[in-house]
Amino acid sequence: MTEGLAINGERLLERLDRFAAIGGTDQGGVNRQALTVLDRQSRTLLTELALKRGFSVFQDPIANLFLRREGKNPDLPPLLIGSHLDSQPAGGRFDGALGTLSAFEVLETLEDLAMTTERAVEVVAFTNEEGCRFAPGCMGSMAFAEGAIPDHWRTLKATDGADFAPELAATLQSLPEAQSRPLGFPVHAYLEVHIEQGPSLESQGLPIGIVTGIQGTRWLEVTVTGQTAHAGTTALTYRRDPMRAVTAALAVLYQEIMPADPSARFTVGRMTLSPGATNAIPESVRLTIDLRHPTPERLDAMEARVKEIFEGEARGEACKVMLARIFDMAPTQFPPALLEVLDQAAESAGLAAQHMLSGAFHDALFMNRIAPAAMIFVPCRDGLSHNPAEHVEPEHSIAGATLLLHAVSLLACVEA
Amino acid sequence: MTEGLAINGERLLERLDRFAAIGGTDQGGVNRQALTVLDRQSRTLLTELALKRGFSVFQDPIANLFLRREGKNPDLPPLLIGSHLDSQPAGGRFDGALGTLSAFEVLETLEDLAMTTERAVEVVAFTNEEGCRFAPGCMGSMAFAEGAIPDHWRTLKATDGADFAPELAATLQSLPEAQSRPLGFPVHAYLEVHIEQGPSLESQGLPIGIVTGIQGTRWLEVTVTGQTAHAGTTALTYRRDPMRAVTAALAVLYQEIMPADPSARFTVGRMTLSPGATNAIPESVRLTIDLRHPTPERLDAMEARVKEIFEGEARGEACKVMLARIFDMAPTQFPPALLEVLDQAAESAGLAAQHMLSGAFHDALFMNRIAPAAMIFVPCRDGLSHNPAEHVEPEHSIAGATLLLHAVSLLACVEA
Repeated sequence: MTEGLAINGERLLERLDRFAAIGGTDQGGVNRQALTVLDRQSRTLLTELALKRGFSVFQDPIANLFLRREGKNPDLPPLLIGSHLDSQPAGGRFDGALGTLSAFEVLETLEDLAMTTERAVEVVAFTNEEGCRFAPGCMGSMAFAEGAIPDHWRTLKATDGADFAPELAATLQSLPEAQSRPLGFPVHAYLEVHIEQGPSLESQGLPIGIVTGIQGTRWLEVTVTGQTAHAGTTALTYRRDPMRAVTAALAVLYQEIMPADPSARFTVGRMTLSPGATNAIPESVRLTIDLRHPTPERLDAMEARVKEIFEGEARGEACKVMLARIFDMAPTQFPPALLEVLDQAAESAGLAAQHMLSGAFHDALFMNRIAPAAMIFVPCRDGLSHNPAEHVEPEHSIAGATLLLHAVSLLACVEA
Repeated sequence: MTEGLAINGERLLERLDRFAAIGGTDQGGVNRQALTVLDRQSRTLLTELALKRGFSVFQDPIANLFLRREGKNPDLPPLLIGSHLDSQPAGGRFDGALGTLSAFEVLETLEDLAMTTERAVEVVAFTNEEGCRFAPGCMGSMAFAEGAIPDHWRTLKATDGADFAPELAATLQSLPEAQSRPLGFPVHAYLEVHIEQGPSLESQGLPIGIVTGIQGTRWLEVTVTGQTAHAGTTALTYRRDPMRAVTAALAVLYQEIMPADPSARFTVGRMTLSPGATNAIPESVRLTIDLRHPTPERLDAMEARVKEIFEGEARGEACKVMLARIFDMAPTQFPPALLEVLDQAAESAGLAAQHMLSGAFHDALFMNRIAPAAMIFVPCRDGLSHNPAEHVEPEHSIAGATLLLHAVSLLACVEA
């Protein structure tokens, strides 16, 4: 009975443009980092759109935003669909926004078609999925799944120096229209549309990927400490240069880890030298390492190798190494029953799809701990993401939202 | 007639403690960066001490501070003695302050002994020798020697975000007692006491080094640009990771440059990754390289090698390299006639001394372009400098000031 169900593609594309303007950059990308004024503006816009359509608006203590279209039976746990609105510092227009606005488009389509659903359908925009201004990522879905906000988050500092607690409070206060709601209420299922952020769908000419699971992610913070001294007068034998140890260690790890294993990811995105003077040997070098792999065993092996190489190179420079896990997310599998629903939905929507693994983690990973969750991927140009050049073809944005609509009608609608 | 001339050692040591308290750090070091409020406090204190002794106080447009004790013939170019008061962010108590306060101790001793000098003797504290908050270093002596402030300095930004022009103006305004004076007036000679910032005097048990010249310094800024992309989804073949190229290049250069040439210095003190997110491959990596060598030919060869290695590694990552010289100072030789005066002074003061080359550049290098200049080195513990643990034995501080006093009496005093 779901054949022919269609979303309003023009409306979806126009919405994507409107939200891309909030924090839009000269390069055509978006810089709308979590809990900033720009993030608040995007929440306000989505709330206004929801109230216009008669949906009710809620937010929980971590500022996850919910837009609810009531169902026949208000007591049933709602079907949750959505993603996030925050972006990377040099982010694109689609990462997060596409999933949130596709979900909102589905909600409006249900309203346009006056479709009755057995249970309420809710759009969610999770807080700080990116984790770049405040680490870790997926704060909103993590706290929702835990049912609590970890105490140590309260004292987090942003990369721009801002404090977490006041930024969260200001974000909550910026939406007086929203009703308060507790963390972690019962959820029937969670579906999320997202760009692939990789090249595989595009290279196979497929509009849809049905995500069967997510590879594990581990963030390490490595601090190597030596001795700062004068750059001009300190001969090699007197140097304890942490930068020398760090570059030697990284040169080995770049050569070793990814070339040996196509499923492995090894990335250094942040590094700080102290004191940071051109003419002083650094006292210490601090860096982050982002490790990913589909299997926990390989993640452990990669971390052990990082430790071994850094300690070896640091010994050679008479430097000390500290290594800390600042984020650790095991690989996850989505439930087969929900994947079957997505297969059916793809069939009824007439969309070619393949099953695939996600290279990035997403809010769906945390939601999957408390309710059946799954994801729908659409292709992006050259596999580019976390980049201003991030691009999704209009027909692919429409395909993702269409598949979501069909899946929602299978999961939430009353059968005739 | 100079035998037996002595400074007031206790007074010098007490002054060193008082100035070390301005910007003193928990580790026992000093953070008194150029043109900060703390830098202004140290200038104010020195001015107060000078006015108490009846010396006249001047500053020029770059905020070089001069304390003048008049001579028999006010029209003769003054004999200049001094150093700087600014420090590294993680600096020590002696780098700069020792030379400035030793010179002031000499001026007070001349006053205590009512010694008449043929020409005026002036203590100078040069602005921003360190060059860490605003690059380049030696701004004060450079502008003095040029007789002008380079236009492009006006728009410089500090590492802490402050603008150069207003910080300079505020520093000048903070000393209303000082009379204004033009840049680059005629100077009879310039002498500077400084810590060695290296281990050689200490290891030979010598109290004094007479500096015959300064090795050349070249600062390069290298920017490697690739393509930022998602750390989890971007497979190796799709990566253009500037960090990978930078670490590979540096690993080679660290292995190659200093081990092959004991006179060469290669230091990376600053590095910035953009956008700087844990889960994003950097778009670009910018770093500084501090190169030093006593010969211009080797400096050119080292820079050429840096360029070659970076361009090779960047090509392999499909990244672009930009390389800019942000500071370039040729090696310099101090005039033999002035070195002879220092040899005589060491003899009359009964201090064992050796001739040596300076690994660091100093204000004396720029002063040597417009007047005969030379330097007196004293040992520092373990050769440590640009470090909170920087330490000079009291008897060595006193030895340096004593030698300076003897040299001044040879250069400026009226023979009986």
